[in-house]
Amino acid sequence: MMHNESPYAPRIQKLAALLREMELPALLVSHAANRFYLSGFELHDPQCNESAGWLLVKDSGEAWLMTDPRYKDAARRLWPKDRLFIYTAPRLDQIAAFMADLGVRKLGVETRGMCAEAYLHLGDHFELEPVTECVEKLRMIKDEREIRAMRASCALNHKVFGQIEKILAPGMTESEVAWSIEKLYREQGASELSFATIVGVGPNGALPHAVPGEQRISDNCPVLIDMGCRLDGYCSDQTRTFWVGETPSPEFLRTRDLVREAQELAITALHPGMPAKEAYGVSREFFRQHGVEQYFTHGLGHGIGLETHEGPSLSPLSTARLEPGMVVTVEPGLYYPEWGGVRWEFMVLITESGVEVF
Amino acid sequence: MMHNESPYAPRIQKLAALLREMELPALLVSHAANRFYLSGFELHDPQCNESAGWLLVKDSGEAWLMTDPRYKDAARRLWPKDRLFIYTAPRLDQIAAFMADLGVRKLGVETRGMCAEAYLHLGDHFELEPVTECVEKLRMIKDEREIRAMRASCALNHKVFGQIEKILAPGMTESEVAWSIEKLYREQGASELSFATIVGVGPNGALPHAVPGEQRISDNCPVLIDMGCRLDGYCSDQTRTFWVGETPSPEFLRTRDLVREAQELAITALHPGMPAKEAYGVSREFFRQHGVEQYFTHGLGHGIGLETHEGPSLSPLSTARLEPGMVVTVEPGLYYPEWGGVRWEFMVLITESGVEVF
Repeated sequence: MMHNESPYAPRIQKLAALLREMELPALLVSHAANRFYLSGFELHDPQCNESAGWLLVKDSGEAWLMTDPRYKDAARRLWPKDRLFIYTAPRLDQIAAFMADLGVRKLGVETRGMCAEAYLHLGDHFELEPVTECVEKLRMIKDEREIRAMRASCALNHKVFGQIEKILAPGMTESEVAWSIEKLYREQGASELSFATIVGVGPNGALPHAVPGEQRISDNCPVLIDMGCRLDGYCSDQTRTFWVGETPSPEFLRTRDLVREAQELAITALHPGMPAKEAYGVSREFFRQHGVEQYFTHGLGHGIGLETHEGPSLSPLSTARLEPGMVVTVEPGLYYPEWGGVRWEFMVLITESGVEVF
Repeated sequence: MMHNESPYAPRIQKLAALLREMELPALLVSHAANRFYLSGFELHDPQCNESAGWLLVKDSGEAWLMTDPRYKDAARRLWPKDRLFIYTAPRLDQIAAFMADLGVRKLGVETRGMCAEAYLHLGDHFELEPVTECVEKLRMIKDEREIRAMRASCALNHKVFGQIEKILAPGMTESEVAWSIEKLYREQGASELSFATIVGVGPNGALPHAVPGEQRISDNCPVLIDMGCRLDGYCSDQTRTFWVGETPSPEFLRTRDLVREAQELAITALHPGMPAKEAYGVSREFFRQHGVEQYFTHGLGHGIGLETHEGPSLSPLSTARLEPGMVVTVEPGLYYPEWGGVRWEFMVLITESGVEVF
């Protein structure tokens, strides 16, 4: 059950306080990562269109876990039996009846983590209030336990980068490199990749969504690798761009130096209270001064935690403000379709006094 | 572009005909597997709450692919430039404006493959018609190309079962077995697992959602393995239950024989025109005759293809009728919390005259 050391009970109490602030009597938690954050129950749904279960949290701090018979055993290990509801088909009818019996009338729903079908169905039974950022707000600020897990996930990422750098050699295909990386992660404790590894050889490095394919590393070429793993539930995400061979091109060296300087400038500038879009502006302005800003084609970074992409975004449109406990990626890049691209990415924790680079 | 051999153009024409039948002028395809089925574009979204793109199909057979700059290059390789829309933020506003410019007023939306937020936003601009089964109906009937891919995916699954049977030995943990299986798949051509492998040693085999853990195979015990891979886009899914050791228990042997006989009876009964729930009934009735029906705690099977779980369901509540070209799993099981469970699962193609077991 939820003993003292469990992080879940305090998180649910924090959520209940937030609900009282929002004057929302209850929230139905349907987004998988939010559910896991609050209960430890199933970080993943079996498919995007198939739920492993939902959590109902009242503003009183009471919480019910609802799932189907496949997960009964897993749920019982985590959750008090009298706060557990096992539904069968028809699922939405059973869930609606159960919540109505609990006295639920007005209900917040996570509109980014619930399909429209469920929304429409529940709307026949409850007064629904669309909620887009609630558990996500709590998740943005990592606690000590989460920070430890993310440091460890990132440390394994650094280690695998060190190992893969020694393996990279002319003749290897992108997909061979990607598979070598995956094995190194898994055999050193990661439960899975945090996202599909990007390996871009030569010009492929200029593609933001380079799927590792049959392109081979040549005697002298850049190789961009963007990779991450999940360790103890938490994601890492880092990018480095290597030159394989003896004679890196002047364009590569110049671009790499600019990207790394832009990254360092941005990291140095990060501090609590800073608007997230200003961080983007620091790198952008540096690239502008060097006449290359048109080759910087994406945001500067994103929050990361239980999901690879979460809040806050370090994009020019971001409205977030940095706070201690946030973990963000800082990943400027410059891309040239003729020869490739350079991206360099670190994960950074915002602290009371500045930053800690993982 | 869409040359003659591509499966996508004919699929879109079939969908357009279905839309005309439904008197629906356009459908917005947001579910990832449906999008891939119709366009070849991105089988996966990067996260369940993050889309790689949507497809707009008009009842005229015209189709537009909408995506963000990350996927521009991938989209251009698949789709005519003048039918491609690259959006940036704010995404939903840009998509709504683009579709309005195309004259869209009434719009079908896949309510099981679209989040409520998008549904509510688009509802401000269009007359929305919730659609739950449309592309899914087309996908249920596999064409020759898909059947070839599924045969191959299943053949690799059989091969890996043969390999893993030789490796299983006392002392191995469930998670070691699962990782061995994953490596065998990946090193023989699979792009990924089709679902998280289930390895249940002893009593864990009775858990429908057995996550491979640190439980070790003992000198004499049952091991249930439910596993599948994705090969050329298509999923396989099979279960076998092994006895490791010299002296299988009488309960295990009796249960295994009952399960395999129930499976054979069901497979023999399958034919075009049969209500899917009757297939379930065949196994259920056999178990009833042997007094063990209360240990058969799930449906008989499910459709499979680009997704591990798709239509039709072989459950007691299913309203589907079997048709040639459908591929379903047949997976009866009996579960005893004291010692474990036995499940046996094959994939079966419904043909004009009966079935082909993959």
